[in-house]
Amino acid sequence: MTTKDISRPVCILGLGLIGGSLLRDLHAANHPVFGYNRSRSGARSAVGEGFDVSADLEATLQRAAAEDALIVLAVPMTAVATLLDEIQVHAPHNGITDVVSVKTAVYNEIKARNMQDQYVGSHPMAGTAESGWGASMTDLFKRAVWVVTFDHLFEGEKVSSRWVGIWKDVVQMALAVGAEVVPSRVTPHDAAAARVSHLPHILAETLAIVGDNGGALSLSLAAGSYRDSTRVAGTDPGLVRAMCEGNASALLKALDEAMVILQEARDGLAAETPNIESLADNGYRSRIRYEARSGQRRSKESVSPTITSSRPVLRLHPGTPNWEKQLIHAETLGARIEVF
Amino acid sequence: MTTKDISRPVCILGLGLIGGSLLRDLHAANHPVFGYNRSRSGARSAVGEGFDVSADLEATLQRAAAEDALIVLAVPMTAVATLLDEIQVHAPHNGITDVVSVKTAVYNEIKARNMQDQYVGSHPMAGTAESGWGASMTDLFKRAVWVVTFDHLFEGEKVSSRWVGIWKDVVQMALAVGAEVVPSRVTPHDAAAARVSHLPHILAETLAIVGDNGGALSLSLAAGSYRDSTRVAGTDPGLVRAMCEGNASALLKALDEAMVILQEARDGLAAETPNIESLADNGYRSRIRYEARSGQRRSKESVSPTITSSRPVLRLHPGTPNWEKQLIHAETLGARIEVF
Repeated sequence: MTTKDISRPVCILGLGLIGGSLLRDLHAANHPVFGYNRSRSGARSAVGEGFDVSADLEATLQRAAAEDALIVLAVPMTAVATLLDEIQVHAPHNGITDVVSVKTAVYNEIKARNMQDQYVGSHPMAGTAESGWGASMTDLFKRAVWVVTFDHLFEGEKVSSRWVGIWKDVVQMALAVGAEVVPSRVTPHDAAAARVSHLPHILAETLAIVGDNGGALSLSLAAGSYRDSTRVAGTDPGLVRAMCEGNASALLKALDEAMVILQEARDGLAAETPNIESLADNGYRSRIRYEARSGQRRSKESVSPTITSSRPVLRLHPGTPNWEKQLIHAETLGARIEVF
Repeated sequence: MTTKDISRPVCILGLGLIGGSLLRDLHAANHPVFGYNRSRSGARSAVGEGFDVSADLEATLQRAAAEDALIVLAVPMTAVATLLDEIQVHAPHNGITDVVSVKTAVYNEIKARNMQDQYVGSHPMAGTAESGWGASMTDLFKRAVWVVTFDHLFEGEKVSSRWVGIWKDVVQMALAVGAEVVPSRVTPHDAAAARVSHLPHILAETLAIVGDNGGALSLSLAAGSYRDSTRVAGTDPGLVRAMCEGNASALLKALDEAMVILQEARDGLAAETPNIESLADNGYRSRIRYEARSGQRRSKESVSPTITSSRPVLRLHPGTPNWEKQLIHAETLGARIEVF
């Protein structure tokens, strides 16, 4: 997959870990890409490395309008509304996507401005505990899942062919940087992200605190399980808050499920003969299913370092009569798609 | 540090991940080491690789008695009592240690047989999600913490010089395979292990289940945070049960602490303006403290792959009048020790 299938230049607003890494990959693939960063020092660093980057939002948006660029919002949820207001003033007709980890909250801002026919949500499931331009890198998205939303198809109005073109560009951009595109509407995305992305943060913060409460001996004894399970607690707390608070209702459901399971484990440990058989067996089976899906489980005999995705693939042609159904089907299966 | 400071041959009972890896390291260092494995196929594999291994427990223990070997119990908690009974019959005077992840439960078995003056508990904080001889490897313990217990010093009777010798051998064995020795009595060890080793398993199993409950889309969207936070849910459920159920009362305390924190987070998410500031800030600070202690936090500028332990070091001479106090001091600080 190459960038030749992206029909527009790309304009990235926000050059942190995700936006910066996307800029690097598109630039490396020789696709026309430029960006804006609020922090002047970050923008200067990027310019110093040869990237087409500005700290002037208005000028960047005017250029995006003139070039009909696809605008990528790569800022925390808390900054989305302000940027959309600026876009409405300076680049009111451009196609827009975002890479924020919550999708309902972003879509509510889109709907409040009646921008649905120019917007396609997306979310690359990639990252590290670091943030900012300094943490950005090439190949961050290689083999990562990149969710692309399609709610606009089900809003009771005929979508424009322009919207279909924007949708295709978002998909092609994700594929061009090596990601696997999984389509999902915003509500199922947020429910899934709460389970596999936001709840891990809540549990990691909690475990980090309980370990630390044990004092010096605890921290000295902490080994691989604590290290790996608390890794994402090293994320900037502001970013953790933005994603968890921005997806509060879905996260609450996942957290409540977790607390029921923990209460059962607690009861099992408090029994006269402690017993956590159900937790250990179910947890193990769930982890094995995940490993099968992500292609992580390799036979011990295998010496190949290659991990291949085991997600099913659906091929579809955007805009054909049946594609809404195919997208729903892919969402249900968690399938990645190829477009032709 | 070399194996020349271990005054006895080593006899390892149980050649799974931990026992097998210890056998490999001691063998590689040319220290006399032999072992027993209940599974004949595991024993055969080990013999085929040139190790001095038998599937005959009685013969192995008789040899340990004849050679005055240090016996290492490297079996799950559930098999400890039976092995101690066999040792009392066939090798009643040998020095004994164990590498089980809970220490109070093992010590209760030792005390029930009045074997305190020949036993020193230990626990290497190392492992992977795999188990069995096939998972064993060299260098598993390199830079890992290896806890060595010393409760016998505080039981109101003069310890034998032979016990001091066994204690030194256990420490020297741990140092010889590259570990950092942290002394702790069994109760503080179990409290710390509950926080940083057993609670991570409970939370990992829980997270694995909640993610899996989200179905195919959830498992497809799962990325690094879910992968790392559920890694230890891939551990054999029987081993997870043995360690968690064997440390139930300490784990219950850690789990209750976690549930209070989670309940606060829940309340924060359910508020009209969702707010998890306290969780995110405290969790972040705790993780940073852990990284400082383990030497994991490196400056972004550093290109060195070397991670150096930041645990304090205490040097002590076993058997001198002051050493009990030094051991308590090290336990409090989570300090590693060197002996001279």
